[in-house]
Amino acid sequence: MTAKYTAYQELESRFTRLSMINDALGILDWDSQTMMPAGAADGRAAQIATLRVLAHELLTDSRLADTLAEAESLPALSPWQRANLREMHHTWVHANAVPAELVEASSRAASACEMIWRTARPASDYRSLLPALTEVLELQREIGAAKAATLDCSPYEALLDAYEPGARTARLDSLFDDLAVFLPDFLPRVLERQATLPVPRSIDGRFPVSVQRTLGERLMRVAGFDSNRGRLDVSLHPFCGGATNDVRLTTRYDDADFTVSLMAVLHETGHALYEQGRPAAWLSQPVGAARGMAIHESQSLIIEMQAARSRPFLEFLAPLVRQTFGRDGPAWQADNLWRHYTRVQPGYIRVDADEVTYPAHIILRYRLERAMVGGDLAPADLPAAWNDGFRDLLGLTPPDDRRGCLQDIHWPSGGWGYFPTYTLGAVIAAQLFDAACRADPGILQGLGRGDFVPLIGWLRTHIHTQGSLLATDDLLTAATGRPLDAAIYRRHLERRYLDGE
Amino acid sequence: MTAKYTAYQELESRFTRLSMINDALGILDWDSQTMMPAGAADGRAAQIATLRVLAHELLTDSRLADTLAEAESLPALSPWQRANLREMHHTWVHANAVPAELVEASSRAASACEMIWRTARPASDYRSLLPALTEVLELQREIGAAKAATLDCSPYEALLDAYEPGARTARLDSLFDDLAVFLPDFLPRVLERQATLPVPRSIDGRFPVSVQRTLGERLMRVAGFDSNRGRLDVSLHPFCGGATNDVRLTTRYDDADFTVSLMAVLHETGHALYEQGRPAAWLSQPVGAARGMAIHESQSLIIEMQAARSRPFLEFLAPLVRQTFGRDGPAWQADNLWRHYTRVQPGYIRVDADEVTYPAHIILRYRLERAMVGGDLAPADLPAAWNDGFRDLLGLTPPDDRRGCLQDIHWPSGGWGYFPTYTLGAVIAAQLFDAACRADPGILQGLGRGDFVPLIGWLRTHIHTQGSLLATDDLLTAATGRPLDAAIYRRHLERRYLDGE
Repeated sequence: MTAKYTAYQELESRFTRLSMINDALGILDWDSQTMMPAGAADGRAAQIATLRVLAHELLTDSRLADTLAEAESLPALSPWQRANLREMHHTWVHANAVPAELVEASSRAASACEMIWRTARPASDYRSLLPALTEVLELQREIGAAKAATLDCSPYEALLDAYEPGARTARLDSLFDDLAVFLPDFLPRVLERQATLPVPRSIDGRFPVSVQRTLGERLMRVAGFDSNRGRLDVSLHPFCGGATNDVRLTTRYDDADFTVSLMAVLHETGHALYEQGRPAAWLSQPVGAARGMAIHESQSLIIEMQAARSRPFLEFLAPLVRQTFGRDGPAWQADNLWRHYTRVQPGYIRVDADEVTYPAHIILRYRLERAMVGGDLAPADLPAAWNDGFRDLLGLTPPDDRRGCLQDIHWPSGGWGYFPTYTLGAVIAAQLFDAACRADPGILQGLGRGDFVPLIGWLRTHIHTQGSLLATDDLLTAATGRPLDAAIYRRHLERRYLDGE
Repeated sequence: MTAKYTAYQELESRFTRLSMINDALGILDWDSQTMMPAGAADGRAAQIATLRVLAHELLTDSRLADTLAEAESLPALSPWQRANLREMHHTWVHANAVPAELVEASSRAASACEMIWRTARPASDYRSLLPALTEVLELQREIGAAKAATLDCSPYEALLDAYEPGARTARLDSLFDDLAVFLPDFLPRVLERQATLPVPRSIDGRFPVSVQRTLGERLMRVAGFDSNRGRLDVSLHPFCGGATNDVRLTTRYDDADFTVSLMAVLHETGHALYEQGRPAAWLSQPVGAARGMAIHESQSLIIEMQAARSRPFLEFLAPLVRQTFGRDGPAWQADNLWRHYTRVQPGYIRVDADEVTYPAHIILRYRLERAMVGGDLAPADLPAAWNDGFRDLLGLTPPDDRRGCLQDIHWPSGGWGYFPTYTLGAVIAAQLFDAACRADPGILQGLGRGDFVPLIGWLRTHIHTQGSLLATDDLLTAATGRPLDAAIYRRHLERRYLDGE
């Protein structure tokens, strides 16, 4: 064993420890949102802060730069080892570019701002949020500026890079400008066609939570979820978290409407399948991690939007829900489920948006957050800019800030640069699903029988087991034969919403 | 701020961090036993091991000895600060006396042995356990020897000291020899009197788990449990764990018998009340921790054995269980509950033992583990020694090792020196309850109304809020006016089991 080989081993060992701490944090965070009694909140915040400091210390150890350089000079590394070093280096850059005091100040400002937002939103009181939001933004701008030099990009891109490594605004502008041209023309055509179809029959009733839960767990298994390595619980905001080989997903139930939770569970199951399919030999290493938030979102949307809203799957689903709830009739047929799940209705709230109008919500946020981080839009001017932009994109003016710029937690809680990954994920999902179905016509047929094995098999091979071996663009090209291509996404929307496929 | 003051502050800050890691470990351990899917076990073990290493590194930092010495030389510390330093020093001694490799070897041997025990016990196959158990013992003896020099005690006492700081065998011998004389004479008198009473009527029925759970949670609140800072769940082996201000207790349910779970919940509630009552200003410091396992067990037994098996409490409980389960009749009267809950029946299994025969199980284990750690009993000779000792103490010969020396997890899992704390706890519980009732006659009256406020108020003042300010003996003397006194415990047994009080 040479000294240089030791440097690589030393890094693997350090990042394994980091992975264990992050796994522990994943369970503690899940517990906070599902199990923890309210009075434990302060203590839990302190526990989480302590583990984060320990993780950060592992990455800011002054010897690490030399160890990385030494390992990187090794000639005999395998492609996975080399990619692992690249990902280690990327993690190291993000951790070391920003002074610890700035990280802490930003974290504290975001916690305080989020607290204010929780009352400002229902009161539609943007003025009360403004000072705290301004501080959060200023600290995010400082973080972005600190990272920008090392990453050789703009401050906004540096923030974006933490969620979607390698993403740059030139690519996003091109994608979003394309969609911003397409959607205002496409939406009226969709609505026009929709008006010629019967209105979806309402699927009324009382749907006990325990029955919904059993159905959700059944659909998770149908989609390929391994219940030996994860579980489903309830939280206010659905998420997919937990730890390696221990994926915790959550949903919430409305006993007057099972349809929302059903799709929400399938969405989180898509995330979970990705986590459960990561490369077994690299689970505790950076190269074994999910590729980024855009690919992660694509995996949830492939299940929720591409597979589960397809006509074949709804043919499978309809008799299952009839049997589960002991109901029947026209509202409970596959065609009505399809009309229900593909109903387009422009509205103010992103999380309630349909597949067609969703990108407009994202484009607006992308443009605004980029302008704010770039110093081109003052937080005081956000509400007006929001409403102008919303009108331009969707033809509606939000009646108040609660249904406008106050609706999302992301900005108050410090999540700047995250929004674009939602629509990137939707575009990638369409492209991957298209490639998968071309490669294996059995995929769609399988969905009609509730058989996800062909689809998940393709995703396992081309996405899940690849971890972070390739950069996002290269992963997509390797899987589909071409780089990101919004035309496939547009075609998906046209087929579903104009052709009724 | 002087440099010396800084040394103390530095220690507080380090031990706060340690407390946060231990809190995180408490939640991860709870999750393992209540929520975790089976396939996550290996990963969880690795996460826990990593956090333990991080905690251990905090205590074995080479600068710590100097910092402790510097802080200890300060003249202006408050009694709580000085006690805090004493507890820090004690923690430091236990962490530093043993080489890290020995700790790790012992931990690995114990995990392996526990796995073998899980199959050896049901098969009653001591021979298959012997090699692994011998290794565990040898490593425990090494640990004891390594600590003994620093602690100025025997290796067995050094092991004991980790659970019950300051406990020494001279005191335990005196206590247990006293009880070993008392019990063989006392037990036949108890059985003779019991034979003159009606046999308890059986409390038959089906008791749905959800109803038992609601009853358990109600009794927890009755006893003073703060549900805002803790919760009740299900696990195979009931325990009280979790984190600061986040006490997680567990039980298990038998739908043919609610009586066992009911008392088990009250037992764990006693532990929980201690945790919830620790001194608020010192929660993250060693001086704010529970005093030791003997006092901890005394708090569970005060609730379960002293309060909840008292006639006044059973008068309160009887109508509550009648109403809860919608039942009535002679079996459901307080007197029958009393006969049920105070039934004495010598048997082989410790965890099923009644209050009168329980100490015999502990005395046997104490004598055997002390002999094994001292090198006076070879593990190969354990089964014969167990059976001889059991016959001497209880007049029964275990029919097999499953019901003999294989029944407990403690030795296989490395918990040597723990057993004595059970009976120490029972003796202390009797002494504290006696003192409390003398100080406030309203305590017993309160129990008759389901009002635990007077009892818990006394415990809060004299035990819970004292944390680890005093040594166990001093705490007991301050609370009751005298050191540990087995006579009070004997009198408690005589009154309940001979006088029928």
